[in-house]
Amino acid sequence: MGELEIRTAVAEDVPAIVALLADDPLGARRETPDDLAPYRAALTRIDADPNQHLVVAERAGRVVGTLQLSVIPGLSRRGATRSVIEGVRVHADERGAGLGTRLIEWAVDASRREGCVLVQLTSDRTRDDAHRFYERLGFEPSHLGFKLQLRPPL
Amino acid sequence: MGELEIRTAVAEDVPAIVALLADDPLGARRETPDDLAPYRAALTRIDADPNQHLVVAERAGRVVGTLQLSVIPGLSRRGATRSVIEGVRVHADERGAGLGTRLIEWAVDASRREGCVLVQLTSDRTRDDAHRFYERLGFEPSHLGFKLQLRPPL
Repeated sequence: MGELEIRTAVAEDVPAIVALLADDPLGARRETPDDLAPYRAALTRIDADPNQHLVVAERAGRVVGTLQLSVIPGLSRRGATRSVIEGVRVHADERGAGLGTRLIEWAVDASRREGCVLVQLTSDRTRDDAHRFYERLGFEPSHLGFKLQLRPPL
Repeated sequence: MGELEIRTAVAEDVPAIVALLADDPLGARRETPDDLAPYRAALTRIDADPNQHLVVAERAGRVVGTLQLSVIPGLSRRGATRSVIEGVRVHADERGAGLGTRLIEWAVDASRREGCVLVQLTSDRTRDDAHRFYERLGFEPSHLGFKLQLRPPL
């Protein structure tokens, strides 16, 4: 396999990122790879916010993974800045081969560079494999994650 | 009791906010109300980020509650912008009197105004009362929340 590069996502990556988001038991119901306009608009919002880092993992010219890292300053824990990881996806061809670990390691390193004191993420309670994966990487399942949907999925 | 006002936090509120953060079974071990410098620096970072909204609830000239709302644009869920609630605290004198509900309702309304599709938060697994509170307000405990500490607490 070729060298892996993790880099900031650009507009040309949107179709590949959406394909990764949709190739997932939960994402299949939530994404619309045949209508990319809302994703392109979202990338413009992400690019305008210096605390958002949307990256792709590229191997041999192909996007094979993605995640988003958000940096959040805050008052609690002695004015700690924290980071939040969202939207972690690995291409089916790459699963079990260490790419997820590489992506999370990138996010942890980037969080340290940004001065974050902790990294947090939530994972759907049905994703048992993901939970074992994060625990192996040292994450503690110390919290419950609550969501309130404001608009029905389109 | 006087009228309640929920407003953006300013520098003069820092001592009262830190006192609220520290008056908590978990916060007592994590906060330093006798050293406010790191909190003041954090408020400067929060003020510089238009996607961060740190608010206080004030009644009769006294700060009696606080929360932070972060707006996060993203690609998943059709380019959904989401919001994250952190650092919800209610003064001991006000507990059980509806102030927590008022604060969360403020956060939900603000999230709608910002175009968010969903609101999310995590709550320590030991906070059973908080979990019942969020479920009553319509939040679903659909996720596990993982944290990785990058630096030991100071």
